Amino acid sequence: MLEKTTRMNYLYDFYQSLLTPKQRSYMSLYYLDDFSLGEIAEEYEVSRQAVFDNIKRTEAMLEEYEKKLLLFRKFQDRKVILENMKKALETNSVEELAKLIEALEILE
Amino acid sequence: MLEKTTRMNYLYDFYQSLLTPKQRSYMSLYYLDDFSLGEIAEEYEVSRQAVFDNIKRTEAMLEEYEKKLLLFRKFQDRKVILENMKKALETNSVEELAKLIEALEILE
Repeated sequence: MLEKTTRMNYLYDFYQSLLTPKQRSYMSLYYLDDFSLGEIAEEYEVSRQAVFDNIKRTEAMLEEYEKKLLLFRKFQDRKVILENMKKALETNSVEELAKLIEALEILE
Repeated sequence: MLEKTTRMNYLYDFYQSLLTPKQRSYMSLYYLDDFSLGEIAEEYEVSRQAVFDNIKRTEAMLEEYEKKLLLFRKFQDRKVILENMKKALETNSVEELAKLIEALEILE
């Protein structure tokens, strides 16, 4: 569950600009501010079920965007390469650095 | 006009997965294969105007996605940093490389 929350936080971060204001509000209260479904329902004067359905649909949309654009996956890949770059820099491994720069270029 | 074509090629490359199959066909024939509006209209047995309208709408959608997700802009920014990394590597500028790695991390 924690893993799903982390993933949703990232996907929300990458794709929130593609959501409607209502979707953004519910997702941000639920995932970032840790509100319960009941608390969000009360805040917006709608049923708990309506909030639940909206969030489930939004989660599916975020996964769909990720399937199409892979922004989270590429971010993770770049992060690994950047960490390896720092290590290569510490040990002054010029060849390794050249390879890692190339790996970043290919990733685009 | 050439500049617009190049930009549209890039935007299409980044966001084509978010388009419908028909949008993808028209855009790819028009921008990648250099078909005229008339040739596409003939190919799909629709009016030239219909093809024109569809392509204009798709172009606007691509610009809208770019405004929201900035994939092309970030790609260009990363490209500049990667070029500078190669130069820094050639001159063995360790400090400069460290700065550039940091610049890439911030860009995410």
